[in-house]
Amino acid sequence: MDKKIGFHMTPEEFRRHGREVVDWIAEYYEKIETFPVLSQAYPGQIRASLPKDPPLQGESFEAILQDVGRLILPGITHWQSPNFFAFFPANASGPSILGELLSAGLGVQGMLWATSPACTELETQVLDWLADMLDLPEKFKSSGKGGGVIQDTASSASLSALLAAREKATGFQTNQKGCDGRLVAYTSTQAHSSIEKAVKIAGLGLKNLRLIAVDDRFAMQPAALSLQIGQDRQAGLIPCFVSATVGTTSSNALDPLPEIGRICRQEGLWFHVDGAMSGTAALCPEYRYILKGLESADSFCFNPHKWMFTNFDCDCFFVADRETLIQTFSILPEYLRNKASESGAVFDYRDWHIQLGRRFRALKLWFVLRYYGIEGLQYHVRQHIKLAQSFARWVQEDDRFELAAPAPLNLVCFRYKGSDEQNQQLVEKLNQSGALYLTHTVLNGRYTLRFCVGQTNTEDRHVIQAWEKIQETVKTLSAE
Amino acid sequence: MDKKIGFHMTPEEFRRHGREVVDWIAEYYEKIETFPVLSQAYPGQIRASLPKDPPLQGESFEAILQDVGRLILPGITHWQSPNFFAFFPANASGPSILGELLSAGLGVQGMLWATSPACTELETQVLDWLADMLDLPEKFKSSGKGGGVIQDTASSASLSALLAAREKATGFQTNQKGCDGRLVAYTSTQAHSSIEKAVKIAGLGLKNLRLIAVDDRFAMQPAALSLQIGQDRQAGLIPCFVSATVGTTSSNALDPLPEIGRICRQEGLWFHVDGAMSGTAALCPEYRYILKGLESADSFCFNPHKWMFTNFDCDCFFVADRETLIQTFSILPEYLRNKASESGAVFDYRDWHIQLGRRFRALKLWFVLRYYGIEGLQYHVRQHIKLAQSFARWVQEDDRFELAAPAPLNLVCFRYKGSDEQNQQLVEKLNQSGALYLTHTVLNGRYTLRFCVGQTNTEDRHVIQAWEKIQETVKTLSAE
Repeated sequence: MDKKIGFHMTPEEFRRHGREVVDWIAEYYEKIETFPVLSQAYPGQIRASLPKDPPLQGESFEAILQDVGRLILPGITHWQSPNFFAFFPANASGPSILGELLSAGLGVQGMLWATSPACTELETQVLDWLADMLDLPEKFKSSGKGGGVIQDTASSASLSALLAAREKATGFQTNQKGCDGRLVAYTSTQAHSSIEKAVKIAGLGLKNLRLIAVDDRFAMQPAALSLQIGQDRQAGLIPCFVSATVGTTSSNALDPLPEIGRICRQEGLWFHVDGAMSGTAALCPEYRYILKGLESADSFCFNPHKWMFTNFDCDCFFVADRETLIQTFSILPEYLRNKASESGAVFDYRDWHIQLGRRFRALKLWFVLRYYGIEGLQYHVRQHIKLAQSFARWVQEDDRFELAAPAPLNLVCFRYKGSDEQNQQLVEKLNQSGALYLTHTVLNGRYTLRFCVGQTNTEDRHVIQAWEKIQETVKTLSAE
Repeated sequence: MDKKIGFHMTPEEFRRHGREVVDWIAEYYEKIETFPVLSQAYPGQIRASLPKDPPLQGESFEAILQDVGRLILPGITHWQSPNFFAFFPANASGPSILGELLSAGLGVQGMLWATSPACTELETQVLDWLADMLDLPEKFKSSGKGGGVIQDTASSASLSALLAAREKATGFQTNQKGCDGRLVAYTSTQAHSSIEKAVKIAGLGLKNLRLIAVDDRFAMQPAALSLQIGQDRQAGLIPCFVSATVGTTSSNALDPLPEIGRICRQEGLWFHVDGAMSGTAALCPEYRYILKGLESADSFCFNPHKWMFTNFDCDCFFVADRETLIQTFSILPEYLRNKASESGAVFDYRDWHIQLGRRFRALKLWFVLRYYGIEGLQYHVRQHIKLAQSFARWVQEDDRFELAAPAPLNLVCFRYKGSDEQNQQLVEKLNQSGALYLTHTVLNGRYTLRFCVGQTNTEDRHVIQAWEKIQETVKTLSAE
């Protein structure tokens, strides 16, 4: 043991070990393409390599860091590999990682304005910037009655929107009296599972979630929505919330916001728009059509931690009417009272989400926006979309393959023209090869491959290699 | 501009800028005592210093980092200052900060086992370690039917416990049919505001939250709980959840777990124990009495991000019956299906909490446990308690002051023997001085000062200085 009991790491030691970790990360990125993208660990392998009991005495930092490479790395699925095409990306970048480091170093809480004014004010500013950068309606900015807040994930943002909708529909009485089984929420059959989870958490019950049918592009059918709302009203129920998706997880479908928004306005329902991944595309004027109709939305979220080079977690959640959100979540125990809050001149973000404590996440977002600038971010988004579009074209040009859905942005859904089993085999073989990682979905009852381009360092060569690997692998599939 | 559009930070640049940030943090800790602990910024000051619009082109990392000191630091309330005695601590440490950095660098998602097996398996292992370190009942370990998971905050953990309780009480039917206004939850008048927030979110309604009276030590009265449950049953309601606190936020009161547990077992209610800050004290055998009675609990949480040198966020949430928790949250869209999950041999932590995405938080916790070892952590906990106990003694020995509540651990509630207004003035003058930061509460209707010792680097001299400053400041209070 080279440490006496109870010594903290001194600033001098922090400098030394901090450099070791920085170097470790830099080296990780230099050699990231040498690892199999999907971890090849078997269940229990990593745990079996760890000591059964926690250490009685402290260990040297060197020993700990060494074990990260030795014990942890084999169990890592490399989300930051440029050969990662699975799910949606959760990309990151140098400025973001260093912003996160700084946030951890400062270690402040942003639950109240007073507990670190910069944590709140930078967040408000950066979210107003983003509203402009995506050309969101003015009402989502803090200068009016709305505003943005950083949530951990779109799951939490959607839940927050649903809760605000629930309270608005019942004059804030559900918070007081509880749900009574009459509130109804709407989304499409293609919406993210987080909507289902939110409906359960908020006490509405799954039987009151309507999964509206989609068209042949997997987009919600407004007529079906309208019809269902009418039927529910006739049945004495209280429609309160519609969640539309800009870029569904399965196939990147774009729900028709203008039509859905019109229905929500007519019917007086809260209209939430989930643009978790695809919202980022609106950085570029040529893709802003995806948010057309957002004027009639009550809330919107997108995740810089997916496709905007900001490491997880960082979901940006905007509301048009912040008072409704605040009133939904507001709590005021004595030990949190303070003059600044009572002056009404500040935001206390604890009342904008589920948690009380919150870290300084605006810092990393600020770092990313400044380091890249609007033009830098646009450049990369365009590159990713261009690569995905090339991939989609190659799929179409190869007789053995077909597209399974429109590919408007950076996700391509496709399949080998064979059986579902063969397509499943194809995914498994590709992922087991370690050369790339992609995942699947089911569209129209058919097993479908998903290829999403969004990792920070993905370039032409990675997409070309992936396509070659796919072409090569289909030759090895078992006959039907 | 020294950067071309669209260039990412190269590993070599990351090494250079990473060192700059590491040095910045080391220097911050070296000079942290020179800053006023509570930020002296006025509302709007930080925002006013920021550019109105986001940058069109990227900026150099040096320029960004410089602005942190110039624009952000004046708006920071220094939670990591050894003169921070406010709220509960949210402490941090070198190994934890570097663990967070590494986690940001790896940038993996732990929503499914398969999306990074090490993220899940290290978490399970470290939480089992912690169960042993706090001498929790065996049932909370993953080797049996229970297990632990890292949540962001105790707010989310309590909400998760309440949701599981709600589902257990209704045979998982509330998820399907929604709340019907009959489920009732119980906690004490002194419980954290997050219980109130959870009851609202989960759709029970505040009218179904019973705030049970406390005794003269601010601990829940089991007889009153028992009586209330009986009355609610007679009224046709369905009692489902009791949350007891080990170390309330106001005054560090310890609810009597054995008696409350007995009632919960008799009545068949879910028994949750919130030890957000004080749970850490159970690292030391001599303080384990605070968790006596935990054998009958269904869930327990404590926050290493409060008092265990692990930067926010890191709440450890343990359940005795993981199946109930998992069934409460479970969702299974096609795009998340995979062989490992279907084998049943792995945990998918997405089903243990609200969010889907999750970062690799076990890494920083593992770093802390290994760097300090059990003995190192015990040493610091004992030091903090010793310092708080000295402070409590000084209060008692000074005729001008009195203790306002028992001080079993590291929080001292006290007041100047004057008016509420004078005590409020005292807090304001102390905080405005910049020499320290403490906050207040109200106990038995009286304005009360809270002094909590828990920041990583707080030593004897800081507590002595604080007491001297308090003694000196009372001399300057306006007459009643």
